[in-house]
Amino acid sequence: MKAMREIELKGHIIDSQILTKVFDRIMDMNGEFEVLTFDIGKRKTDSSYARLMVGGKDDEHVDQIISELHRLGARLPEMEDVELAPAPADRVIPKGFYSTTNHPTHVRHKNEWLGVENIEMDCLVVVEDTRALCKPLAMIKKGDHVAIGKKGIRVVPPERPRSRSIFEFMGGGTSSERPSETLISQIAEEIKKIKKKGGKIAVVAGPAIIHTGAAPSLAKMVKKGYVDVLLAGNALAVHDIEYDLYGTSLGMNIKNAELVSEGHKNHIYAISEIIQAGSIAKAVEQKIIKGGIMYECVKKNIPFVLAGSIRDDGPLPDVITDAMAAQDAIRVAIKDVDMVLMMATMLHSIATGNRLSSHVKTICIDINPATVTKLMDRGTAQVIGIVTDVGTFLPMLAEKLLE
Amino acid sequence: MKAMREIELKGHIIDSQILTKVFDRIMDMNGEFEVLTFDIGKRKTDSSYARLMVGGKDDEHVDQIISELHRLGARLPEMEDVELAPAPADRVIPKGFYSTTNHPTHVRHKNEWLGVENIEMDCLVVVEDTRALCKPLAMIKKGDHVAIGKKGIRVVPPERPRSRSIFEFMGGGTSSERPSETLISQIAEEIKKIKKKGGKIAVVAGPAIIHTGAAPSLAKMVKKGYVDVLLAGNALAVHDIEYDLYGTSLGMNIKNAELVSEGHKNHIYAISEIIQAGSIAKAVEQKIIKGGIMYECVKKNIPFVLAGSIRDDGPLPDVITDAMAAQDAIRVAIKDVDMVLMMATMLHSIATGNRLSSHVKTICIDINPATVTKLMDRGTAQVIGIVTDVGTFLPMLAEKLLE
Amino acid sequence: MKAMREIELKGHIIDSQILTKVFDRIMDMNGEFEVLTFDIGKRKTDSSYARLMVGGKDDEHVDQIISELHRLGARLPEMEDVELAPAPADRVIPKGFYSTTNHPTHVRHKNEWLGVENIEMDCLVVVEDTRALCKPLAMIKKGDHVAIGKKGIRVVPPERPRSRSIFEFMGGGTSSERPSETLISQIAEEIKKIKKKGGKIAVVAGPAIIHTGAAPSLAKMVKKGYVDVLLAGNALAVHDIEYDLYGTSLGMNIKNAELVSEGHKNHIYAISEIIQAGSIAKAVEQKIIKGGIMYECVKKNIPFVLAGSIRDDGPLPDVITDAMAAQDAIRVAIKDVDMVLMMATMLHSIATGNRLSSHVKTICIDINPATVTKLMDRGTAQVIGIVTDVGTFLPMLAEKLLE
Amino acid sequence: MKAMREIELKGHIIDSQILTKVFDRIMDMNGEFEVLTFDIGKRKTDSSYARLMVGGKDDEHVDQIISELHRLGARLPEMEDVELAPAPADRVIPKGFYSTTNHPTHVRHKNEWLGVENIEMDCLVVVEDTRALCKPLAMIKKGDHVAIGKKGIRVVPPERPRSRSIFEFMGGGTSSERPSETLISQIAEEIKKIKKKGGKIAVVAGPAIIHTGAAPSLAKMVKKGYVDVLLAGNALAVHDIEYDLYGTSLGMNIKNAELVSEGHKNHIYAISEIIQAGSIAKAVEQKIIKGGIMYECVKKNIPFVLAGSIRDDGPLPDVITDAMAAQDAIRVAIKDVDMVLMMATMLHSIATGNRLSSHVKTICIDINPATVTKLMDRGTAQVIGIVTDVGTFLPMLAEKLLE
Repeated sequence: MKAMREIELKGHIIDSQILTKVFDRIMDMNGEFEVLTFDIGKRKTDSSYARLMVGGKDDEHVDQIISELHRLGARLPEMEDVELAPAPADRVIPKGFYSTTNHPTHVRHKNEWLGVENIEMDCLVVVEDTRALCKPLAMIKKGDHVAIGKKGIRVVPPERPRSRSIFEFMGGGTSSERPSETLISQIAEEIKKIKKKGGKIAVVAGPAIIHTGAAPSLAKMVKKGYVDVLLAGNALAVHDIEYDLYGTSLGMNIKNAELVSEGHKNHIYAISEIIQAGSIAKAVEQKIIKGGIMYECVKKNIPFVLAGSIRDDGPLPDVITDAMAAQDAIRVAIKDVDMVLMMATMLHSIATGNRLSSHVKTICIDINPATVTKLMDRGTAQVIGIVTDVGTFLPMLAEKLLE
Repeated sequence: MKAMREIELKGHIIDSQILTKVFDRIMDMNGEFEVLTFDIGKRKTDSSYARLMVGGKDDEHVDQIISELHRLGARLPEMEDVELAPAPADRVIPKGFYSTTNHPTHVRHKNEWLGVENIEMDCLVVVEDTRALCKPLAMIKKGDHVAIGKKGIRVVPPERPRSRSIFEFMGGGTSSERPSETLISQIAEEIKKIKKKGGKIAVVAGPAIIHTGAAPSLAKMVKKGYVDVLLAGNALAVHDIEYDLYGTSLGMNIKNAELVSEGHKNHIYAISEIIQAGSIAKAVEQKIIKGGIMYECVKKNIPFVLAGSIRDDGPLPDVITDAMAAQDAIRVAIKDVDMVLMMATMLHSIATGNRLSSHVKTICIDINPATVTKLMDRGTAQVIGIVTDVGTFLPMLAEKLLE
Repeated sequence: MKAMREIELKGHIIDSQILTKVFDRIMDMNGEFEVLTFDIGKRKTDSSYARLMVGGKDDEHVDQIISELHRLGARLPEMEDVELAPAPADRVIPKGFYSTTNHPTHVRHKNEWLGVENIEMDCLVVVEDTRALCKPLAMIKKGDHVAIGKKGIRVVPPERPRSRSIFEFMGGGTSSERPSETLISQIAEEIKKIKKKGGKIAVVAGPAIIHTGAAPSLAKMVKKGYVDVLLAGNALAVHDIEYDLYGTSLGMNIKNAELVSEGHKNHIYAISEIIQAGSIAKAVEQKIIKGGIMYECVKKNIPFVLAGSIRDDGPLPDVITDAMAAQDAIRVAIKDVDMVLMMATMLHSIATGNRLSSHVKTICIDINPATVTKLMDRGTAQVIGIVTDVGTFLPMLAEKLLE
Repeated sequence: MKAMREIELKGHIIDSQILTKVFDRIMDMNGEFEVLTFDIGKRKTDSSYARLMVGGKDDEHVDQIISELHRLGARLPEMEDVELAPAPADRVIPKGFYSTTNHPTHVRHKNEWLGVENIEMDCLVVVEDTRALCKPLAMIKKGDHVAIGKKGIRVVPPERPRSRSIFEFMGGGTSSERPSETLISQIAEEIKKIKKKGGKIAVVAGPAIIHTGAAPSLAKMVKKGYVDVLLAGNALAVHDIEYDLYGTSLGMNIKNAELVSEGHKNHIYAISEIIQAGSIAKAVEQKIIKGGIMYECVKKNIPFVLAGSIRDDGPLPDVITDAMAAQDAIRVAIKDVDMVLMMATMLHSIATGNRLSSHVKTICIDINPATVTKLMDRGTAQVIGIVTDVGTFLPMLAEKLLE
């Protein structure tokens, strides 16, 4: 070992697996380590502290290791300011840029620690006077002071919850072979608890909610104040409106599961009606739409983002067809949410997950376990997955919320 | 075309796709055909009649084609008796044996048409005096008169139901994106209708019913008389009894989804208790078991078959560990059933499906669409699949049955 | 039956299941029918002809039935011109509009039959002088002459292929439990056959092609002329370029499957490099990109469409971020293609499938059978599905193409 | 905290997550802990040592906690002998019995530590003189000295491998989005390494290997000495023999993927042929079988276990139809294996996994990710999963092994 450097770790570093991951990563990268100090939390509420000497074959090697450990929460004990470099052009990054995790992050600038605002994964940190901003590549402007390296940057990965809740015992897993009704009760409890504390809940929703007949349940949840923001695509809104106008979804009568004559045209009629009205809100005003999820959102002034996709028919006038503009709208919408319920959509769930801080409670409900796996593989590691049928899940959830 | 032979087709041969399949098969096999007569059913209740001349490059070729068409319901107009050949040894088949479909089948023996008893796919037909029996290879005895070729054999494939029901509009498909609650209501209607007519319903059940917390719902269905026979494995019974004795399944408390201390031992304890009692029925008698699916079966005298598998712990004394003996027990149990509900088990569903006549109404409920696909690929083509979570499905079904 | 109307059917209406579907639909809708004439094709190359009287409880009922039959290929024997109505406003449809299928379609205007150009499902037909155009709702302009009802419109559903090929024996199914290598050989044969005849092949590609290490195989196929147009998203191009620049995909070294230090930043670096160069083509020119799928496309002048999505990082400057603009680019790109290979992407496969005429040979390769099911449920019924691992499939396909 | 007890932990307890799990479990169970001593391994080859005081609300509570920690590798520092109790009857367990993990286990009896022989999960430990045996419930005899409680029992959970291999970097995960060909190369390397050291490899194989056309590849692997034991069901052997005798599998010609006339009868013919010959080995001797997987096994004297199931046709005379007898045959067959390759079968993979010690390298290859998930949920936590198509995987693996 020619080169070495000290790091320190603080918090519930054992039961939150942080120390485990640090050791693993060093070994994965053929590095060495020596534990200099280790003050283990004596009791479960105490936090631990560790100082490690990390070694590698040369300075570059140690550097590479340190920069991985850094993402896991390790800090360099030396007190140094973050290094900044100007962006050479719009949407062009300086070499060595610091790429964000989705964990709460702080940068030390002019001897002060600044919390990075609106943290999300795979972005850059830009320092402006006394603020540190998390910016996606697309928003980088020439000359922005972009954080590089990892000096003066601290990451705070989430710790294992100390309380007993569905988020603790399901931690990072899916619901295979667990009691469905019990889990649904516990989700209802969490939702109620958050609303009681004045928290915000976002719902990410796919069109299968309508096809499987669960639209009235979600509409009721909106009406009763359990949804603070709705994120969806054109299809959810179209089929919700189709169902309100004609009683069908994909041309199928939801009440008896029969295909309706000419029903395949209903979703196009529905879009055309809303285009003629001007917008969903105007269609509610004009009493064209008289019920359903979108109706309740309009009535309760619940903000919604309908993000466009290349599969869309129409689309509705409310749909944001530019992907980048839609991303930004999602960013604004999920600011300060405490919990996200993702239901029956892989595209919108991953797009939302990519913009979420790791401390936001996230539940993904899908019939396909691959949706949860992908979300976690893409970095939304805090998600818990419930593999179930949204068509039976939502009625049960709504009942437990409203009972 | 050097060789040719006439066939005839009768019934609802167009809307049941029989004529389509006949034409397809001839073309697949490079054969030719000429339509000699075609009397189409003028109205939807009329049946059609067709006579076709089938041609091939030589007699063997035509023979091969005919024997495929035969399985689709085509008949040779000549009135001939079935050909029989003796089995050369126990479990050894004569060359050219007739392999059964799962459709109702008749053989002409001594100028009389005999219905083949207990028809199931991939078996042999043995004629004994005035009876025709469907026998699996394992039951063939030396000297049995086994049907060979296809002369004097008639197959009656199922026709499209004339009435409107879930079986008609879901025909051969799965429930992806259909209204879950509506489908469950319709299944409840079908069950009630069958019970009203004095029909029999079999349930094939996997242990996920217990793990997902749906055991009380199935137990209630048994108690209320909606289940006439139960087909399952060791695991369903073990976990049902574990749940009754200790409130857990796989060591998890079903009421709060928490792992119970020492809970991993509960299923072994449960097995041991029943072994000590002698059997499930005796454990009910001795008041060791006081509730649950198996309890209700014992109380209501509902026959159950617990078929063993190489994954089993224990097993319980009631389990039939020999695979061939278990198959035979399944055969006996499903005789005369009108409907089968298969829930959350691929192994037992396919094993049961393989023994079912194609006229038995069959519904497969599974979270994994592959289970339905496999069932259909293995020949249980009449099945309709509901891709949902048994943990939310069963409570909803039980509620609709009992309301 | 108070009301009735005649229809006629022509072609291989039996083995292509058209007659079956017509009878089914009438019965589904509680209608009646009487067969007036039925001239069945005597031999397999002959086509059939049927005239049916369709009855219902009143004119509206018969009308509803007829308009469903129409989509299956039924024609009204009366020779009438198509009815047209003006669009009341931009993107607003006249009542009773004719909604397209994805089958080749003709409209009779001023006594002449016009083929509808660029047919795709769920669109409108607009007649301009002597042309009939298929237009999505978004392109409808106030005053456009939109076809309504179904008079004077003919739909030609695809017939079962008379030749023996993978498209015939796999018709509308997935590859579960079929010999993988044999299927790959047959796909290679089809590709070669199409290229020999001067046909065009489109590839729809997801990023898993890069992650699973199959990029060099696809690059080789482009280079050797087996790909005429590429449809993908930002991620495919980013990871292809990341792999070319740094040997990684999602930060993983493709050659040894190890995570590279700081590798999670590579895809952002790759995007930034291309933004700085100006475009993918310029990056190739400037020798920044020296190989890979995108490189070969640029070198061979193969057009590509990179459609944006809300999950995108960056995106690359070549990405069309507006969903509607991207849809139109897809429409242009797939004009006149003879075959589409869809690989490892549900979003782009469905978006492309929605724009395809049903006569285009379509193969979907995916590890997840749900992708194929969804494609078919969404109307791309001609697709055949190969459930396999693109990481082993593509190397084998490339080998068979190039041997 | 009224009650407390000391435990100790040794080994790579941090990077193998043992300490993390211990802390987690104490908190899950509402216990408390105090760290008395903690000597952390200073370097990556050093092991660590910890002494903890565990507290609970009463002795029973502490006991419950300790018995969970015990399964994770915690030891009671006091040196006491294992407690034994006699089994009250055949297959009946004494209260408080010790239920095994699948980790290597030692019991202290008369002051000596005895390694438990043939360790597998969910069994009992029986002490006979100077031997400690792992016995499933079914083998317990009245009077057997069964271990109870956890005193004098040590469990050694597997530690994270120190070397770099596929088993380390894939640890407990599936291959989603990893380079397929690279992974296959690495599996080939592992196999070669094990064979070089004289190790034993078991293959667990499902019939899809035959249907997907991969039988020749597996046969070649057997022939070349890469398979030491084969575990399968009736179907694998039947279809392998069907393929050898008639070139088909499930009646489909593997070379051109076409259904063969009368092909549906071939598997029954194949079974009948072997029944007539007496056994698979005799059919090889009599030159009825001339190639394939079973042929190579017979020729190379590779032991095989064909375990029966209720889905079986026939079965072949070599099939063990009793589930318990088949389990025991599996136990004997996998004794001393170093690696297990599980391919395309959930039933046999889980049955084998349940009998395996956690130190055996285990790879599961399946197109369905649920198979891997189930294996891990059922306790075979050491498995690494490769989600791929066995029909392309095996040819590639065989090529890499033989090149």
